[in-house]
Amino acid sequence: MAKLFQHGTLAMLVDGLFGGTIDSNELLKHGDFGIGTAEGLNGELIVLNGVIYQALADGSVQKVNDEMLPFADVNWSKFENRVQVENANMQNVDQLLSKEAMFHNTFVAIKLTGTFDKVQTRVVEKQERPYPGLSETASQQKVFDAQTISGTVVGYYTPELFNGAGVAGMHLHFLDDKHQFGGHLLGFEATKAVLSWQILDGLDLELPTGDSEFMGHHPSSMEDVHQSISESEK
Amino acid sequence: MAKLFQHGTLAMLVDGLFGGTIDSNELLKHGDFGIGTAEGLNGELIVLNGVIYQALADGSVQKVNDEMLPFADVNWSKFENRVQVENANMQNVDQLLSKEAMFHNTFVAIKLTGTFDKVQTRVVEKQERPYPGLSETASQQKVFDAQTISGTVVGYYTPELFNGAGVAGMHLHFLDDKHQFGGHLLGFEATKAVLSWQILDGLDLELPTGDSEFMGHHPSSMEDVHQSISESEK
Repeated sequence: MAKLFQHGTLAMLVDGLFGGTIDSNELLKHGDFGIGTAEGLNGELIVLNGVIYQALADGSVQKVNDEMLPFADVNWSKFENRVQVENANMQNVDQLLSKEAMFHNTFVAIKLTGTFDKVQTRVVEKQERPYPGLSETASQQKVFDAQTISGTVVGYYTPELFNGAGVAGMHLHFLDDKHQFGGHLLGFEATKAVLSWQILDGLDLELPTGDSEFMGHHPSSMEDVHQSISESEK
Repeated sequence: MAKLFQHGTLAMLVDGLFGGTIDSNELLKHGDFGIGTAEGLNGELIVLNGVIYQALADGSVQKVNDEMLPFADVNWSKFENRVQVENANMQNVDQLLSKEAMFHNTFVAIKLTGTFDKVQTRVVEKQERPYPGLSETASQQKVFDAQTISGTVVGYYTPELFNGAGVAGMHLHFLDDKHQFGGHLLGFEATKAVLSWQILDGLDLELPTGDSEFMGHHPSSMEDVHQSISESEK
């Protein structure tokens, strides 16, 4: 059974629980491919070939070693489905996956590689305690654009049923092949790209039950959580 | 990490996906304590000390051997918290747990033992294909009452965030010590009972991705799922 391993929940981030609760080295015991964020929402993480890259709000990318993370999704990558897509963008890749992969009910790992004509990403600025809620960090996010850049889109499809635990629908990050440009993917255009996906057999969710801040927290209503995810992550 | 192992989702049951997708022997590799239902919603399952008991709609209880199940929750029991409760009932046990166990954010296994003055359970009747939705089965459920009966309440607390995946709040079944009376717990009164609980560190959710009925299914809206769970399971 190949599952999506997830540490933490989006709902925690909505409520400003940005403290790190899993060590990055520990995370890599659960997968070699994925996405996440670091303590204080410090950047956007991309896990590729067992290495964690961190796209920072100053536009740089660095490797992560031994950092504490509040939220991450990883899996052991084994992409069994692959198609070439012409004139790929966010919308048609979404449509193509919905049609080809027949997934409304389970988690799916998604990879898209190629030379992208245009890529737009965003990176949240590192937050300091007392942490604000996730929605408030949106005003401090940096947007980056690149043209003619080779790289990889990394992310997941999450069924609507798990919105709040994760981001329902597509949640995608980007990293270029030189490991110099990345972030949460806002949009792209690629004349030719290769789309791969891997159906996952469930969710292995680890909650930070050793963290008193998490355990003592009274969560927001599901309505507020969904509203905030829709504002911050889509 | 002690997690709640869950096969299937409540949302699947809401939509009438009652076909068995995990073997009962396979389930027992993931825990010795828990709840569930059998193919066709045939009865209410109670897993206790590594044995699966099935409370049937004719009022009998039998052991389950080698049956296919659409939904079950189990964990490896290790109850570290224990209190004696006087004049226990559904409401004050719920209140006591909310206060003592400080859980809004994670899954908790719950056990209550003692001699119960009154117990009321319900058992759904076995459904045949084409399966109706979960709400429609409610009209065919049988209600059973017992007095002065020794037994065990078995179940889980699920955070609101996972309503739809499971039943948010308490989801409790009952089995008497003689293994002759059981079902989904509707209510009880006990002059003295021992309440135990175990904080779980997450959710190990297995989805039946090998089942074409599940994979091809277009799920109901989350609104409908929540409505149906609230009607059927509370």
